[in-house]
Amino acid sequence: MNEKYIKEKERIDDLGLKNLKIIQDDEGFCFGIDSVLLSDFAKNIKKNAKVLDLGTGTGIIGILLCGKTQLSKVIGVEIQTEVANMANRSIKLNKLEDRFEIINDNINNIFNYLEKNSFDVIVTNPPYQKKDSGIKNMKEKKLISRHEVMATLEDFIKISKEILKDKGEFYMVHRPDRLVDILYCMRKYNIEPKNIRFVYPKQNKEPNLFLIKGIKNARPFLKVEKNLYIYDENGKYTKEIKEIYQSAQ
Amino acid sequence: MNEKYIKEKERIDDLGLKNLKIIQDDEGFCFGIDSVLLSDFAKNIKKNAKVLDLGTGTGIIGILLCGKTQLSKVIGVEIQTEVANMANRSIKLNKLEDRFEIINDNINNIFNYLEKNSFDVIVTNPPYQKKDSGIKNMKEKKLISRHEVMATLEDFIKISKEILKDKGEFYMVHRPDRLVDILYCMRKYNIEPKNIRFVYPKQNKEPNLFLIKGIKNARPFLKVEKNLYIYDENGKYTKEIKEIYQSAQ
Repeated sequence: MNEKYIKEKERIDDLGLKNLKIIQDDEGFCFGIDSVLLSDFAKNIKKNAKVLDLGTGTGIIGILLCGKTQLSKVIGVEIQTEVANMANRSIKLNKLEDRFEIINDNINNIFNYLEKNSFDVIVTNPPYQKKDSGIKNMKEKKLISRHEVMATLEDFIKISKEILKDKGEFYMVHRPDRLVDILYCMRKYNIEPKNIRFVYPKQNKEPNLFLIKGIKNARPFLKVEKNLYIYDENGKYTKEIKEIYQSAQ
Repeated sequence: MNEKYIKEKERIDDLGLKNLKIIQDDEGFCFGIDSVLLSDFAKNIKKNAKVLDLGTGTGIIGILLCGKTQLSKVIGVEIQTEVANMANRSIKLNKLEDRFEIINDNINNIFNYLEKNSFDVIVTNPPYQKKDSGIKNMKEKKLISRHEVMATLEDFIKISKEILKDKGEFYMVHRPDRLVDILYCMRKYNIEPKNIRFVYPKQNKEPNLFLIKGIKNARPFLKVEKNLYIYDENGKYTKEIKEIYQSAQ
């Protein structure tokens, strides 16, 4: 009965959270654990918060946040029309039209739609690769989701600063090799990094992701949180990861 | 027979490395594991390197580097006359006069003594506390060693940038709550952070130190190294810490 929502080569995945579902494209960019971890990292946002998801993709973070928090409204910005269309269908499938809305445009055009200093929270899982780095012989959809083709990391942070209210919260997931770029830009644009958590595939490995929370116009003081490990020594999800996947089920 | 080197309330400690020793003052700032870890982190500096230790204190890092590396010369800058005097006596005690020299002045006056762009390596274990933070009802010697009374973190990094040769190496140990300040300043002054290693008292705790290596005028790319744990689950030093303490013995 949900088939009316999907096109050829698309599928509907159950998110294991309050019966929420997401439409994904087998040949596009499918969501990963990073989106799940970011949604969990941001789950204590205040009731009735107005949230902006920059580069929302299929809408995974917005949908999870609708399930995990009492936000009043989340707006997702996605440049790729086909992907934005998929996000819109997932919103309908989940009956979230009142709480989750998609803007299909480049994040750099966001001020055509939204007021400055008007959001309580930004969440973002931006493309991880620098504009001209890495292999690019992939389909355009994956390329735009993974590489800074249409907007740079600095654009994401600069726009966040402008759109957040004073003391608004900024949540991002990214890779450790961009740590300096991110901390530098956050401070440059007055989003002071307050909490950082490194994510490791398992103990005794190097971290491959980190979660960061910043607050606009806050005073400097960074807390490095305990590490988050994905797998235990037996190759199974750790207790914490299981809890993150099961939270609010 | 070494008593001629020490004054009242001072003691001589054996460093467990090539018979090297250090003079310390029971009422002053005694070296900690951070200096030992920093010396180990910097142990692969090239043969014949010219090294500057900013805020050398009792000379612990310079003495350890003389034991662990084939550096040609290390210069330590220490503002406190009494402490610089102790470092000088440790140098004589260890017969390192040809390799290790002390300048007794504020690091901000360093260009009265040294040429710009002339050093291969900087090592520094600066005061951890911000100028006006924390308890200050301590003896002046401890105060200057622990608080940014005479020079700020930004001074340490700015001076390092000016004194290093192109592609010169910068090694620092500090606390995680200053991570943003340090990464921001390093990039600001073109000492690009290349390697960072967090140090944890033990597994499942938050890190309480980090080691960072930067290279002057290098391209951005940060590697987050595997974690370093001090104690194991039984409260004993981990294998790696034992190896660091025993290396080159």
